[in-house]
Amino acid sequence: MSQIKVGIVGGTGYTGVELLRLLALHPNVALHAITSRAEAGIPVSQMFPSLRGHVDLAFSHPDEAHLDQCDLVFFATPNGIAMQQTRALLDAGVKVIDLAADFRIKDVAEWEKWYGMVHACPDLVAEAVYGLPEVNREQIRSARLVANPGCYPTAVQLGFFPLIEAGVVDASSLIADAKSGVSGAGRKAEVGILFSEASDNFKAYGVPGHRHLPEIRQGLARANGSDVGLTFVPHLTPMIRGIHATLYARLKSEADLQALYQQRYADELFVDVLPAGSHPETRSVRGANGCRIAVHRPQGGDVVVVLSVIDNLVKGAAGQAVQNMNLMFGLPEATALNVVPLLP
Amino acid sequence: MSQIKVGIVGGTGYTGVELLRLLALHPNVALHAITSRAEAGIPVSQMFPSLRGHVDLAFSHPDEAHLDQCDLVFFATPNGIAMQQTRALLDAGVKVIDLAADFRIKDVAEWEKWYGMVHACPDLVAEAVYGLPEVNREQIRSARLVANPGCYPTAVQLGFFPLIEAGVVDASSLIADAKSGVSGAGRKAEVGILFSEASDNFKAYGVPGHRHLPEIRQGLARANGSDVGLTFVPHLTPMIRGIHATLYARLKSEADLQALYQQRYADELFVDVLPAGSHPETRSVRGANGCRIAVHRPQGGDVVVVLSVIDNLVKGAAGQAVQNMNLMFGLPEATALNVVPLLP
Amino acid sequence: MSQIKVGIVGGTGYTGVELLRLLALHPNVALHAITSRAEAGIPVSQMFPSLRGHVDLAFSHPDEAHLDQCDLVFFATPNGIAMQQTRALLDAGVKVIDLAADFRIKDVAEWEKWYGMVHACPDLVAEAVYGLPEVNREQIRSARLVANPGCYPTAVQLGFFPLIEAGVVDASSLIADAKSGVSGAGRKAEVGILFSEASDNFKAYGVPGHRHLPEIRQGLARANGSDVGLTFVPHLTPMIRGIHATLYARLKSEADLQALYQQRYADELFVDVLPAGSHPETRSVRGANGCRIAVHRPQGGDVVVVLSVIDNLVKGAAGQAVQNMNLMFGLPEATALNVVPLLP
Amino acid sequence: MSQIKVGIVGGTGYTGVELLRLLALHPNVALHAITSRAEAGIPVSQMFPSLRGHVDLAFSHPDEAHLDQCDLVFFATPNGIAMQQTRALLDAGVKVIDLAADFRIKDVAEWEKWYGMVHACPDLVAEAVYGLPEVNREQIRSARLVANPGCYPTAVQLGFFPLIEAGVVDASSLIADAKSGVSGAGRKAEVGILFSEASDNFKAYGVPGHRHLPEIRQGLARANGSDVGLTFVPHLTPMIRGIHATLYARLKSEADLQALYQQRYADELFVDVLPAGSHPETRSVRGANGCRIAVHRPQGGDVVVVLSVIDNLVKGAAGQAVQNMNLMFGLPEATALNVVPLLP
Repeated sequence: MSQIKVGIVGGTGYTGVELLRLLALHPNVALHAITSRAEAGIPVSQMFPSLRGHVDLAFSHPDEAHLDQCDLVFFATPNGIAMQQTRALLDAGVKVIDLAADFRIKDVAEWEKWYGMVHACPDLVAEAVYGLPEVNREQIRSARLVANPGCYPTAVQLGFFPLIEAGVVDASSLIADAKSGVSGAGRKAEVGILFSEASDNFKAYGVPGHRHLPEIRQGLARANGSDVGLTFVPHLTPMIRGIHATLYARLKSEADLQALYQQRYADELFVDVLPAGSHPETRSVRGANGCRIAVHRPQGGDVVVVLSVIDNLVKGAAGQAVQNMNLMFGLPEATALNVVPLLP
Repeated sequence: MSQIKVGIVGGTGYTGVELLRLLALHPNVALHAITSRAEAGIPVSQMFPSLRGHVDLAFSHPDEAHLDQCDLVFFATPNGIAMQQTRALLDAGVKVIDLAADFRIKDVAEWEKWYGMVHACPDLVAEAVYGLPEVNREQIRSARLVANPGCYPTAVQLGFFPLIEAGVVDASSLIADAKSGVSGAGRKAEVGILFSEASDNFKAYGVPGHRHLPEIRQGLARANGSDVGLTFVPHLTPMIRGIHATLYARLKSEADLQALYQQRYADELFVDVLPAGSHPETRSVRGANGCRIAVHRPQGGDVVVVLSVIDNLVKGAAGQAVQNMNLMFGLPEATALNVVPLLP
Repeated sequence: MSQIKVGIVGGTGYTGVELLRLLALHPNVALHAITSRAEAGIPVSQMFPSLRGHVDLAFSHPDEAHLDQCDLVFFATPNGIAMQQTRALLDAGVKVIDLAADFRIKDVAEWEKWYGMVHACPDLVAEAVYGLPEVNREQIRSARLVANPGCYPTAVQLGFFPLIEAGVVDASSLIADAKSGVSGAGRKAEVGILFSEASDNFKAYGVPGHRHLPEIRQGLARANGSDVGLTFVPHLTPMIRGIHATLYARLKSEADLQALYQQRYADELFVDVLPAGSHPETRSVRGANGCRIAVHRPQGGDVVVVLSVIDNLVKGAAGQAVQNMNLMFGLPEATALNVVPLLP
Repeated sequence: MSQIKVGIVGGTGYTGVELLRLLALHPNVALHAITSRAEAGIPVSQMFPSLRGHVDLAFSHPDEAHLDQCDLVFFATPNGIAMQQTRALLDAGVKVIDLAADFRIKDVAEWEKWYGMVHACPDLVAEAVYGLPEVNREQIRSARLVANPGCYPTAVQLGFFPLIEAGVVDASSLIADAKSGVSGAGRKAEVGILFSEASDNFKAYGVPGHRHLPEIRQGLARANGSDVGLTFVPHLTPMIRGIHATLYARLKSEADLQALYQQRYADELFVDVLPAGSHPETRSVRGANGCRIAVHRPQGGDVVVVLSVIDNLVKGAAGQAVQNMNLMFGLPEATALNVVPLLP
């Protein structure tokens, strides 16, 4: 087949450079343009020397990028940008994957409350497919517009799905205690994520409410068939990449939990259920698109503890976006994603 | 008053060097001996250059340390050592603070199950006072033998006490999701805690059962007046010092949580209840004996989330031991502990 | 004696909070005001929770801080601020210690070249005493205005002095390869010092020329009696605190290097010459005002290698400033600086 | 062509797992056996979960691994092992790449002095080809036995070669100040490389003499045509991967240094000369086989400063070994090495 002509809007953040890392070696992709208003004209590899020899493009000014000539455009932008530009691209026949949150929440009023903006195109929210292949694979294949999931929502939903779909836990009192590496906060000049602030330090944040809460609740409610009760506490941990979600639920009926998880994900390329008794490490997926999960029932009690790890920039962002692209263009789902994690 | 003659058994680990850091500047302490079979004859400051100019002692062989001439002996040893030597010291009129677990669990059978040893002196377990001043201050003052609490148990108990003592939460379904810096694993030559293994990585461990679980349960049961149900999941986070406990409980009656916490700890020198809405950072207590706590009720629901941080080597070990010593010898409780945390 | 009334201009950076950490426990200091235009009214301990319970002040607006009522004002500001305000303070009888670079370089034209500004008060540059007590102790005692040395210059000069003062090395071809923790770059919202940029990474910077080069050259030239040739390469290393300077010089006459160093610093409280063959670690001075030095002559050749470590925020900034203050006010030099380094 | 049957002796260290990471995706390699006496029978992916789904082998006992059936055996073992087993393999027609030091130093007496052993097969030392393709490409193609270079020697030699080959610097007074990530010390249970020891810390080590010194001297002498004078100081820096070598030399004749470097490496796939004025970061080669170099002449003086970075486990070990394998088997040199570095 011919190459997929790909554009990236907002290539100066961590999801942008990560997309470039993966797409640079994708055999079916031709990078058409990477836009950045502030960096227009600067070679991408000057900002990210890791890309020297792999990406020859310079950043383009959005007005000169001719994104409407692409087959697919990724938005690796702050929230609120993709919703301004998506309709024109779709109208031009371009498919869109938004790595930000603009199309993730079906309840537009809820979205507007958490994101503090008026939504520019509620009808496209309705059309958009939530890009978690482990639940929406078929819809993604035929989607024009994919809302790529958030990093926490990916780790938490994949961890909870088998329990909730099987109906074996009390869905009214779920707890997700999640820990993220600092790259999850983006490549922004902010004091709180300086090395000297975030290193050798650990803290929770957003306990009163975090934007990923409604996204997770929506996904779990769909799996559950009705609303769920969820407490979600994110934490910042001094590492670059990785999310570790520790999930708690109360069993309401007996189940072979290990078998439940293995069966649920038996055909999934990117979800790996570890042997009983395991403790997955975030580094075991560093740089790769996998999610590794272990399920525990401490002391045989009625509390299930699920441990779910991903690389927030890969399965939690750019890798999942490439996985979605592969599906949308009829490619083998793992194309360019068959990477061995970097350990140590 | 005259100086307290202090001995330390096992001064080559992190709790040992931390004790030395604090005791070196204690105005009422004279260091008598620090024992180490393997390092006998080596100046302490050769192993720990940070102590150069502050500690002149060399490690002594245990047989030549004349610990029976001390007023107080700290055991900074692996589990199972203090119980072998404590009776002789007590008989010689020496007070003892054990920083390991030998005297923490009143139920000797339970202790033997979790620690995999036969206890050498169950009667001394009965006598020992659990050295958490915030619950046992008066008994500590008159104790001959103090069981210094574990690091996780300190952070978790201080975080849960106000809720449990006030009876406002369901004590049958408590969850403690705790994260520790790597120094909590000790100064042992083990692959799992190498820099290249533990850095840029996050994992849970001991989910099926961790030795601090029975210790925490015992303390919470005492506060509750009856047994509690607790799920405890410890994690290893890539920082040197610090514990962050994230605690979850279900409210069963209304309460002004902020007031509850402030009142409970109003007179405590080393427990600091943060303003409502706060997220304590582990570095805010780095090197100091404080515990900082914040209490949340996300979205006004019925789940209480408590965030509790300590420095595992200070309030979680050596600092609390010095606090206990101060109490046992009638000194102002904060002597040598009035330290400003090191930030950044 | 009565308390020294102290003001701090610019207390929101790392040297500011470090000054507060040290001064909070200084028995002879009363904190009068800490100014910050942007944070006026905010309690200092809200920005730096480590100071809760130790510092009660709020940031003041500079116009309302009445700094002219102080006995001493520290400038913990960006370069170019102190020179605007120092004359008025001196005229009001206030002593001044500038932790920035405004008064460090005697050659005003050289200063203006490296710092890119016109100097506001060259006459005060002439009056200012360079605050390195190990060379200028007596002048500091009687100074009104002290230029506190830079972090790299402190580590490098203390490392080179014995060789140069003794005239045993070729002063025309000195090399200083220095490595700094990230806090040396300050508490500024800049992408390059984000955790995700600086962690798990190592790089040189400023190889064509760094502002500390002329300062080091000036100090070494003074010790040498004539100009020196120096190549200075700073590096950023993924740790919060600490500078490690590795110094290279060519021997031109025989010398007992170990004895040379020990004699030079025999009476210095804060310079510790390690035994022959040692490799000082930055953590061995973490949080403390010491400089530890080792001198090597690999394979008995004619190259001397000196290893010199400090905590950049203490002996490299705030600690040295307090040491200077103690000298200026006739206090014992180590007052409030008798701290045991934090290890691990 | 048919697959290359590959064996790995000693697959439990960091160079072992890194070889597996690279070989798992090599299109021309069939992994035959990975030996480990201690771990025989354990699946490799149990020890290194990052390899789950990529490597199915279990560790074999050396006696049962039938390495003589391989086309190529890599030794990822401690020093002194390969020299015991290589002759038998060569005799059986198996090619050998030793990632340890057994065959690196041509002067056997020198080797024995630095490594403290009697060499088992000096004749094979004579035969062995030093596996630095940038100088020995043709000999490697036809070699039976390749001595894979050390990590420091790779970074330092590639940095110095252009200067020395062109004869523009004084080769009698070279200085190499090198900084390594902690994985360079291996996956060994040693206190000094624990997270709590090595994190937030920086130190030099081996200043009196490091085993890589003779290896570097040998390589530079060969380039120079006669002996060189070299001072080599290695340092441990708190990151997992990466070496940064800062090299100093004195110019003895004028040269266009930038052009010199660009020409020397114009045809090299894995050496990237950065634009003038650059400061390469170790993370810019993380996980990849590249070496990035910048050359400086500070203030136009006569000192050249070269900055050279590699990933110590890739270009400094396993990647270079695969590069050598590709050459030995007539494959495109970059096979399985076309990896985009992981940043951030």
